[in-house]
Amino acid sequence: MEYNLDNAIRKIPDFPKKGILFYDITGILMKPEAFNYCIDKMEELYASSGVNAIAVIESRGFLFGAPLAIRLKMPLILLRKKGKLPGETYSVKFTLEYGEDVIEVHKEDVDSSQNILLIDDLIATGGTLKAAIELLTKGGARVARVFGIVGLPFLNYADILKGYPVKTLINYHAE
Amino acid sequence: MEYNLDNAIRKIPDFPKKGILFYDITGILMKPEAFNYCIDKMEELYASSGVNAIAVIESRGFLFGAPLAIRLKMPLILLRKKGKLPGETYSVKFTLEYGEDVIEVHKEDVDSSQNILLIDDLIATGGTLKAAIELLTKGGARVARVFGIVGLPFLNYADILKGYPVKTLINYHAE
Repeated sequence: MEYNLDNAIRKIPDFPKKGILFYDITGILMKPEAFNYCIDKMEELYASSGVNAIAVIESRGFLFGAPLAIRLKMPLILLRKKGKLPGETYSVKFTLEYGEDVIEVHKEDVDSSQNILLIDDLIATGGTLKAAIELLTKGGARVARVFGIVGLPFLNYADILKGYPVKTLINYHAE
Repeated sequence: MEYNLDNAIRKIPDFPKKGILFYDITGILMKPEAFNYCIDKMEELYASSGVNAIAVIESRGFLFGAPLAIRLKMPLILLRKKGKLPGETYSVKFTLEYGEDVIEVHKEDVDSSQNILLIDDLIATGGTLKAAIELLTKGGARVARVFGIVGLPFLNYADILKGYPVKTLINYHAE
C-alpha cells in the first residue's frame, strides 16, 4: 500500500538557522500509518538484500533502524557522538559546515563478517554517512547499503557516497 | 519464551565517572534474540493496557519505544534535549547530579486525549522521568504507565515516581 509521506513530514523554515528549510520526521512518528509504511518499505528493500547487520546514526537514525532490526532479527550497531558509548571505541573525526564532529562505535560491535545496512533519517551532504562508513570499515566490516527516509539530492550526497547503493523513500529539491 | 537479559547487558565500571557501574543496553541490541525478547515483553505488558500513545526519552529510549510504537500502531512522541526539536515546544528544566538540564516536546504532539506510556532504557533516580511527566502534563496529556528495560531500585525511583505504575524487565541492586 502506498502512502504519501510528504503529508507527514513537517517543514520548518529557518531551522537550525536562517535560510534553512528543515524536513522534520517527527510528523511521521506521530502518524502510525506513515511510520509503519516506512518500516514496511525498508523491510521490502532489505529483507533479501544480503545485509546481516544494521548500523544507525544518533539519534534520529535510531527511530527507523531499531524497528527494522526487530523485523529482520539483525544486530543493531549504534554510531554515536564522542563520549556517549561506554566501552572501547573506534572513532572518526569529520568536518561539518561549522567546525568538527566525532563519531564512535563500540569495537566489539564491528567485525569482518558484517555486511552492513547504514541508516539515518535524512541524507543531505552525506558527510556524516561518509564518516560512518570510514568508522565501520576500521572495524573490518563492509557497508553494503545506505538508507535514509528523506533525501536532499541537490546537496550532492551521490558524489561523496559514490560506490555505495543509496536509497531514500522521498526526495526534496532546492526551493 | 524467557530470556536471561543479564547475559546481554554489558557492565562498564567507572563510566561515566569513577565509582559508577554503568549498565549498557547496547549488548541487547547486538543480540536479536535479546532485543526481540524485550519488544515482545513490552507488547505483552502494554497492548491491552489502555495507553494510546508512547513517549520516549532521548536517545536510548528511542531504541525500545520505536519498535513498540510500530507493533502497537501508536503515535510516538519524542522528548528531547533543549534545541533539538525544530517546532514550537513545551519545556521543563530539572536538576541533575551536576547542574541542570532541559527537556522539550513539540506542542502539537501532546493533547488531552492521550494516555501515555513513557519509556526510557534505564530507570535510576527517576529524575528525568519525573521531568518528562511534568512536560507531558503541561500539554494536557496523562502519563498512565512508565517503563524501563533496566531498573536500579536502590536509587529510589519508586519515591519520586509515586502514583505512576512503573515496570522494568530486569533490576540490579547496589554492589
